[in-house]
Amino acid sequence: MIEVVFLGTGAAAPINERNLSGTAVIRQGEIFLFDCGEGTQMQFRKASLRPGRLRYIFITHLHGDHLFGLPGLLTSLHTAGCHQQVELFGPVGIGEYIRFHQQLCQFALGYTLQIHEISASTPAVLWRSDEYHVEWQPLEHGIFTAGFAFVEADRPGRFDVSRAEQLGVPNGPERGRLQRGESIVLPNGRRVHPEEVLGPPRPGVRIAYCLDTVPCVGVEKLADHADLLIADSTFSAADTEHAHESGHSTAVDAAELARKSGARQLLLTHFSGRLRQEDLPALVAEARTVFPNCSAATDLTRFIVMPREADGAMD
Amino acid sequence: MIEVVFLGTGAAAPINERNLSGTAVIRQGEIFLFDCGEGTQMQFRKASLRPGRLRYIFITHLHGDHLFGLPGLLTSLHTAGCHQQVELFGPVGIGEYIRFHQQLCQFALGYTLQIHEISASTPAVLWRSDEYHVEWQPLEHGIFTAGFAFVEADRPGRFDVSRAEQLGVPNGPERGRLQRGESIVLPNGRRVHPEEVLGPPRPGVRIAYCLDTVPCVGVEKLADHADLLIADSTFSAADTEHAHESGHSTAVDAAELARKSGARQLLLTHFSGRLRQEDLPALVAEARTVFPNCSAATDLTRFIVMPREADGAMD
Repeated sequence: MIEVVFLGTGAAAPINERNLSGTAVIRQGEIFLFDCGEGTQMQFRKASLRPGRLRYIFITHLHGDHLFGLPGLLTSLHTAGCHQQVELFGPVGIGEYIRFHQQLCQFALGYTLQIHEISASTPAVLWRSDEYHVEWQPLEHGIFTAGFAFVEADRPGRFDVSRAEQLGVPNGPERGRLQRGESIVLPNGRRVHPEEVLGPPRPGVRIAYCLDTVPCVGVEKLADHADLLIADSTFSAADTEHAHESGHSTAVDAAELARKSGARQLLLTHFSGRLRQEDLPALVAEARTVFPNCSAATDLTRFIVMPREADGAMD
Repeated sequence: MIEVVFLGTGAAAPINERNLSGTAVIRQGEIFLFDCGEGTQMQFRKASLRPGRLRYIFITHLHGDHLFGLPGLLTSLHTAGCHQQVELFGPVGIGEYIRFHQQLCQFALGYTLQIHEISASTPAVLWRSDEYHVEWQPLEHGIFTAGFAFVEADRPGRFDVSRAEQLGVPNGPERGRLQRGESIVLPNGRRVHPEEVLGPPRPGVRIAYCLDTVPCVGVEKLADHADLLIADSTFSAADTEHAHESGHSTAVDAAELARKSGARQLLLTHFSGRLRQEDLPALVAEARTVFPNCSAATDLTRFIVMPREADGAMD
């Protein structure tokens, strides 16, 4: 189970109900932060997220509304309990941005910050652990912009106890070895392979984070069969031309990207200050004509993302 | 009448009840902003201040909690209605800070930003108009830090109508000329001088803004007979040693500075995250043992500062 917490859902400038871009993905207590607009550290506290659990930060592009909260967040992480290593990913220039602030304002971090700059030649997989990886694709926003996908590794299939009993697998450590994908040999010499007692692999969760951008193939790749697409939805369909001219998408654009890529759920975010909170239901209605499983994110709301097989039920 | 609006009263890192340093002084609709910590543009909106009325920004020093809101505020001022010139004052390095952000994030301001860098050799009066001026003094914080005083020019004394009648001054434009400080000649040849019909000059309001600093002579100069001293009060008296080691003052330090300088009123601000909101009454009580006319500022509170003669009454 993965939790997504929207820290800011506004575009360009904040309004009273919306802070600037920042979205936390929480998996087994680890926090992955996508974008860090001004005020993100305040929203982190308001959402009761523990800064010491922040392990990864991904910055899509070097526009202020996605970036200007980073120096403040990094400065206060240590006193807020962060003593381990933090991995920061962002476009080329992000390293200079951090170093400039450190020199000018004379601050020491108190933890290790590992900076990974992304350029056009950076491989698609940015980071990989045994349990998940993070991919990127270029988006189209007039400035170098990276979209991201957080991808859990598939988990082994469910253990079929009755089949194991039939085969005579003892109720002991042998079952654990089979669950981990190893074959075992029974006392009678029969070799049992994992696939004989395990169901099909259970797919991990895939979450695509795609802002800011006009509709483009990068979003489709990242959102391909995603459990959740978080998408740029700066304007309503009435402002399509202005949206595209300014490097953004409409809610309907986002819905079409979700439909094309076979995503399961769509959350709209990054709303222009022209859109008041009371305008969002109409915006969602526009998007639902194309992709029904769609909602608008609001600041400090939390979404649970379940794996495919667990649709409609807690795991 | 001058209004002071506290946008952020926290030190170093925000807590839920306290944003980072930023204080707006509003005089006849013009806004003077002192410090611009992260989140200042959000607080500006929450306080219903009109960004188009911002004319002057004064940054005390280049620590993040006083500075990191500046790029975001400057970026969004234009769309928020600012089309005139903004004067920015801050320590040497502030210009490089702005230019770095403009280049990296490719933003245009849409208005004229005039940058004035302050160094040890900068004259004490930073800016002067007919109606007010702003002074600075060096403070002691381990990094170059400027304290400020906003000083209204004295206004002419009250016009004494009965004395004017006695002298035979007609009830016409002659009275306006006398009020503006000019002498007039009556039809009978008698010359009337302004001091004959005007009371003593009415002093303008003086507001000193002094953070971050240990107690020092710079605060005393700026707060000299000030109507309001806004002072660094990061810690309670129990933490005096730590306060001074880290370049800060306690509430009692602030009270002693207010007493020594003959200030009329003291507002404490810049509270450490160690101090919860419910700790502030005790902090104020400590300060009141030294200087009774003292309160703690809280985020988004507004204070009216009356000129001396208007004590206890609206002008």
